[in-house]
Parts: sequence; C-alpha cells; structure tokens
Amino acid sequence: MKIGRILSGMRPTGKLHLGHLLGVLKNWVELQDSYECFFEIADWHALTTHYRETEEVVENVLNMICDWLAVGIDPKKSVIFRQSDIIEHAELFLLFSMIVPLPWLERNPTYKEQLREMEGRDLMTYGFLGYPVLQAADILIYRADTVPVGEDQLPHLELTREIARRFNYFYSPIFPEPQAKLSEVPELVGIDGRKMSKSYGNTIPLDTEEEELKKLVRSMITDPARIRKNDPGHPEVCTVFAYHKIFNKEEIEEIDYACRNAQIGCVECKMKLAEKLNQFLAPIREKRKIYSKDRDLTWSILLEGNKKAREEAQKTMELVREAMRIKIT
Amino acid sequence: MKIGRILSGMRPTGKLHLGHLLGVLKNWVELQDSYECFFEIADWHALTTHYRETEEVVENVLNMICDWLAVGIDPKKSVIFRQSDIIEHAELFLLFSMIVPLPWLERNPTYKEQLREMEGRDLMTYGFLGYPVLQAADILIYRADTVPVGEDQLPHLELTREIARRFNYFYSPIFPEPQAKLSEVPELVGIDGRKMSKSYGNTIPLDTEEEELKKLVRSMITDPARIRKNDPGHPEVCTVFAYHKIFNKEEIEEIDYACRNAQIGCVECKMKLAEKLNQFLAPIREKRKIYSKDRDLTWSILLEGNKKAREEAQKTMELVREAMRIKIT
Ligand code: SF4
Ligand code: SF4
Repeated sequence: MKIGRILSGMRPTGKLHLGHLLGVLKNWVELQDSYECFFEIADWHALTTHYRETEEVVENVLNMICDWLAVGIDPKKSVIFRQSDIIEHAELFLLFSMIVPLPWLERNPTYKEQLREMEGRDLMTYGFLGYPVLQAADILIYRADTVPVGEDQLPHLELTREIARRFNYFYSPIFPEPQAKLSEVPELVGIDGRKMSKSYGNTIPLDTEEEELKKLVRSMITDPARIRKNDPGHPEVCTVFAYHKIFNKEEIEEIDYACRNAQIGCVECKMKLAEKLNQFLAPIREKRKIYSKDRDLTWSILLEGNKKAREEAQKTMELVREAMRIKIT
Repeated sequence: MKIGRILSGMRPTGKLHLGHLLGVLKNWVELQDSYECFFEIADWHALTTHYRETEEVVENVLNMICDWLAVGIDPKKSVIFRQSDIIEHAELFLLFSMIVPLPWLERNPTYKEQLREMEGRDLMTYGFLGYPVLQAADILIYRADTVPVGEDQLPHLELTREIARRFNYFYSPIFPEPQAKLSEVPELVGIDGRKMSKSYGNTIPLDTEEEELKKLVRSMITDPARIRKNDPGHPEVCTVFAYHKIFNKEEIEEIDYACRNAQIGCVECKMKLAEKLNQFLAPIREKRKIYSKDRDLTWSILLEGNKKAREEAQKTMELVREAMRIKIT
C-alpha cells in the first residue's frame, strides 16, 4: 500500500554525476517503495534556459534514462516519462496561466536569483518567467500530494500550492495542495572542493570508467598546507577526505589519524578512495551499459512510462475541463 | 485554386450582433472562395479576460457556430474549429513562450491599452500578458500566410511575424510570415449612436425577432434638434439615417431630402428602416434556427472541422518538433 503520490523531475541538460546521485536519485530510489512515483524528464523546462542549444536534447534524454535505470529507478515500480511527450502539460500550463497573477511570478525569489546567476544567457523570456507555472502543471496534472524538494525550491512549491488553491476556489476543488518532502542530503563537493557542477567542470559523471576515475581522484584538491609527506595534514579541509566520509565510512577514523600524524601519503590516500569509488560506481556503470547499448530497449521503457503518465494526465484534464466548464457535454 | 491560407477567429463571449456581421463575418464569407480559411472559435482567448465567468463558454460556442453558419460561413469551404479542442495550440504556445522576449510583450501597445480599457477586471495575469503568443501559435500552427485584420490589430500581427522570424532563424524556416489583409469595413454605430458594443447594451443581435427589432429601431437616437415633425432634420447626425445608408441605399437620397424639408416624420422613417433591417435579418434568423434547434447537427459540424484543423496542426507540430530537435527519431 503506497502512502502517497510523488512527482519529481530533472532537466536533461547533460550527463548525470555523483552529485545528482547523492543529492536526488538515491532519495528517489528509496521513495519508490512507499510512494507512487512519477519521474519526469523535464525537457521543456530545459528549454526555458537552453532554447538555443537543442541539438543534444534527445541524446541527453536517452542518457538520463540510462542513468536513472542504472542507479535503480525501477520502471516496474515507478513511471518514467518525458514531459514533452505528454502534451496535456502544455494545456494545463496554458489554463493555469490565465489565473496566475503576474506579480506572483515577478516577486518569486528564485526567479530573480536565477536571472542573476545565469548572466550571459538571455533569460528575459516569457517562458522563463512562467517556469513555476509549468512546474505547477507538471505536479498537479498527476495530482501528486508530495514533492521531494531541497530548501531552495520551497518558494516554487509554494507557488504550486497557491495555484492549486486558486483553481480549486475559482472552479472546483480537484487538486491536492502538494506537501514538500524535505530530504537531508549530504552536499557532495566537486573534485576541486567547490560545489559539484557541470559548469565548473569538477564533476564525476556516473559513467566514469575506472582509469578515468583514478585520474579524477588524483587531481583532487587536498590539504594545501601539506607539501611533503612528512607534513601533518588537516583532513577537515581536504576534498579527498570529504569523499572518504561518504564512500569509505569504515576507514575514516584510521585515515584521519594517519593523515594528522603524517603516516599516510596523499597518493596512497587517493588510491584508497579511487578503489572505493570504483566499487561504488562499477555496478552502476555495468548496468548503465545494458541500456546505453540497447537504445530500443531504453526507448521502449520510456514509451511504456509515457503511456502510463499520459493516461493519468488525461484523466486529470477531463476533470479540469469539466471544472472550468469548457467541456462540451 | 485558392490563393492563400487564412486564419481568423472570434472570442465566444456572447451573442453576435450586426456589428460583427458587417465588421468581420461579411468579409469572411467573401474570402471563402479565394482562400483556404480556418475560422477559430477562440475560447482559450476568451479566458484571458473572462477566466472567472466560464459558465457560459459552451453555450457561447454553440451560439457562435449557429451565427457563423447562419450568415454564410460554409463548412464545405472552410474549416470551423474550436481552439481548445486542438491542444497542439497549447504546445506551440509553450514552445514559442521560450523564445519570446518579455519586453516584446510588455511594450505591446494593445496590451497597455487593454489593461486601461478593462479596468475593473483583474487582467494582471500571466496569460493575459501572453495573449499575442497564443495568437501567434493560432496563426502559425496552420501556417497561414494571410490574416484579415483591422488597423488596431496590426501590432499583434507584427508580433506574430517577429515570432515566426525568430523561430525560423533559431531552428529551421518552417513558418511563413503572415501578411495583414486590411479590409475596409463600414463602422456600424449602436442604436444610441455610440460604437456598437455589448458592454454599452446598444447592439442588434443577429437573432433579433421582428417585433424586438421594431422596438430597437424605435428607441434609436435621431437628430436631437428635431423635436416636432415640422422641424427640419439633419440626417448627418442621425443614427437612423446612418443605418439607412447601409441597409436602405435605394432610398437614402429621398430620405435625406424629406428629412431636411420636414416631409417625413421620424416614426415613419424608423418604420422604413425596421422593415429593411427585417428583410436583411429574416433569412439569417431562419437559417440560424435550423442550427440552434438541432444541437447535434451543429456539434457534428464543429467536430468535423476540429478533425480537419487538428490534422493540419499535427502536421505543423511534427515539423516544429523536428526543427527544435525534440523529436525522438
Ligand atoms: S592524506 Fe588523505 S586526507 Fe590527508 S591531506 Fe592527503 S588526501 Fe587529504
Ligand atoms: S427623419 Fe429619419 S433621418 Fe431624419 S431625423 Fe428622423 S429618423 Fe433621422
């Protein structure tokens, strides 16, 4: 017996990396057993910022499905679908747009922040301003009652709740007001110690092969004060140690001691990590290959998911059209 | 051989009147023979301003189809369809919204004017701002090359052309830049001499019965300086005379003379007009009854038109998805 319904999604703008896995996907995998999950490949959302670079959309979508399946998103338990294949999302977006006051969008703190962050891209578009309206349509078209979010996305979800409330009040109470499910996730730093992000070029992609993995680990930033092996180290400022804390829990006390007392060299310490990371990624990498090699299989999983999603979306749209009295009876 | 393709539409916000007939529909009827015409019942557009009053949408749609058919829009020649039944419009609206710069919409003179005009309604919505984007989707999804417009709508059409140009430049040149077809139409005043408009309550609905028609004509404003029958009149300031000029061309010189020389009374003059108007409206009224009495017939005409429209819209959307590289191949 599932305890609720979840909608969550990702924008297919590039290969997934360890940050996505620990920050989002691990959580999704765990939620699959207790919730009815709809996982969306948000390619229309990707257009809000990447409308000029659409050459790789399809490849990115395929890669994303491979990544999801590889880490354990299970199409038998969850619905994997692509946003742009469910055109009803666009209809609900349009209908919501009629009742969403402009100031709700203009005042949205995330909007202002993103405009600042993405300098260089021309984001002053009508679609980018409407991002939260499309997001509300995504969530509410499945009448999801639960949305796993990070702290930073709370304002967006609040907008979804407000839109649901407004629709319910104007027409008919057909939408739940979805609740946030905040999940504590360890923030994984990139190999240079900054936030892991594609735009910094400091990520570890999920499909990294063993040799490449070693190279990435070797290039990790360690304690800058530790120049020779004889210098005692400070694990608390070391990126490699931050990874040991996550991927090598068994040995952290030992490494902490050895580092502080100059009993282990950084090269050796990195080798240990590379091995652990490889143990962690190997099964994911192998499973991923099954899907990346068999495009037909992967697309067929998407088509199956699309079908389930669309059925549900169409049910909701029937209710919406009835509520708004648009339906010809 | 048709010389082009036309998209035009009307918002189903109430009964059509003589102003619509002379200002728009007469023109449509004439265009049917030389153009492939798509006539849209723009019910989503009606929502941009009437999102709170949706109770009558379906009734208004039905009435509009009856009116159109009654005046001579011919489903054998033209495609009559309802916007909200072609959900691809919403998809194209969404995709366009990604590439439309906000300032294009905010600077739009029609937008500012309407915000002023419709005081009292809350039009500060995201959808109302996006009105021209939806309009562009309506036109371009049929790849219409010609749009019959009044002077006041030229800025909107220019936006459609700009959106087409931008899409063609970003992705692939699949859209024509539709040309305006300006038509000279006699401006029909309402029975009180002001602009004919539902909001002034001064219209003559197309389905007005004979007795009601007489009443409306009797209440028309005449020359205010003509108090008694012996006073000479000034036809140029008289509403009744303005109607004679349109509906009773044969007699205008005679009436002009008789009025200026106090040889005809206003009551008699109005009776003449009422008769002419009735001759004009009687066949429309009769034809209209066929459709308003047989809802099944009328809906089936719409369904047939929807089918044709949707086929065409789907063809265009295939091209759009290909151009934007969204399509899975
Ligand atoms: S020994 Fe390990 S924990 Fe210590 S500084 Fe070197 S890499 Fe970092
Ligand atoms: S006679 Fe006719 S034209 Fe002259 S003022 Fe009266 S209604 Fe008008």
